[in-house]
Amino acid sequence: MSSDDFHIREARPEDLAALIGLFAADALGGHGDTLDEAARPHYERAFAAIMASPGDLLLVVEHAGEVVATAQLTFIHSLPGRGALKMAIEAVQTRADMRSKGIGARLVNHCLALGRERGAVHAHLTSNAKRVDAHKFYERLGFEKSHAGFKMKLAPAST
Amino acid sequence: MSSDDFHIREARPEDLAALIGLFAADALGGHGDTLDEAARPHYERAFAAIMASPGDLLLVVEHAGEVVATAQLTFIHSLPGRGALKMAIEAVQTRADMRSKGIGARLVNHCLALGRERGAVHAHLTSNAKRVDAHKFYERLGFEKSHAGFKMKLAPAST
Repeated sequence: MSSDDFHIREARPEDLAALIGLFAADALGGHGDTLDEAARPHYERAFAAIMASPGDLLLVVEHAGEVVATAQLTFIHSLPGRGALKMAIEAVQTRADMRSKGIGARLVNHCLALGRERGAVHAHLTSNAKRVDAHKFYERLGFEKSHAGFKMKLAPAST
Repeated sequence: MSSDDFHIREARPEDLAALIGLFAADALGGHGDTLDEAARPHYERAFAAIMASPGDLLLVVEHAGEVVATAQLTFIHSLPGRGALKMAIEAVQTRADMRSKGIGARLVNHCLALGRERGAVHAHLTSNAKRVDAHKFYERLGFEKSHAGFKMKLAPAST
């Protein structure tokens, strides 16, 4: 696959069904994602909130007219690090049949370039401890597995 | 120490010097924090950006008129988890002489209550792999060390 076969752009409202499909197909995360119509309004509200947030950027990789991967960036101002701007990379997902083609690497490197452009001092992300392949992937890209990631459920997912 | 000895509130501009002092005194993180006047404008810009962001909340614990601990919350809308609202806890710091008094636990539990109030589905945070005591602290509070945290430096800290 040559680099001309896909391009990275900001998500648009018409991408939403494809984006939900990417997360619904993910077996490991267990986030209860579904293409059921009943869940659709929750996704629509979240999508609108991401679009409206100046600190958030939702990216998609398009290939042959289809959305095949996505990642979300959140820029966070904080005091430590002399008032550092930090960039969180979240919700990275590549369609199962499009993996091992270098798409994820291109997408994450694109995220890092955007982070540098906006003046972020560092990028960070967490990955489920079970996703051993993903960990190797991020380390190959130059990330350091320097932190432990803690999570606590506060409420049931929307139904 | 009784719970009446300290209270938790949102940070105010006049807390900034005390907040910088908390981070400057932290030996492990290595974030280059300093009370030097030259660095002050960077902190002021970051503080103003946090205050202006509807998704961010900077908390302080006050004790005998002094700021002795802090934590920052960032609420992030995302698509996975049926459009879940997530809460990141960042920049948690307690003044060295005020540790082991239950202040950090009260502060983090307060953060979790705020997260539930705002409808966050889960809370997450990362902690440097070297901070073994902090990891036990978060696990005692009910967090699960379910993720690996990856970080990459994108630019030098502001001087």
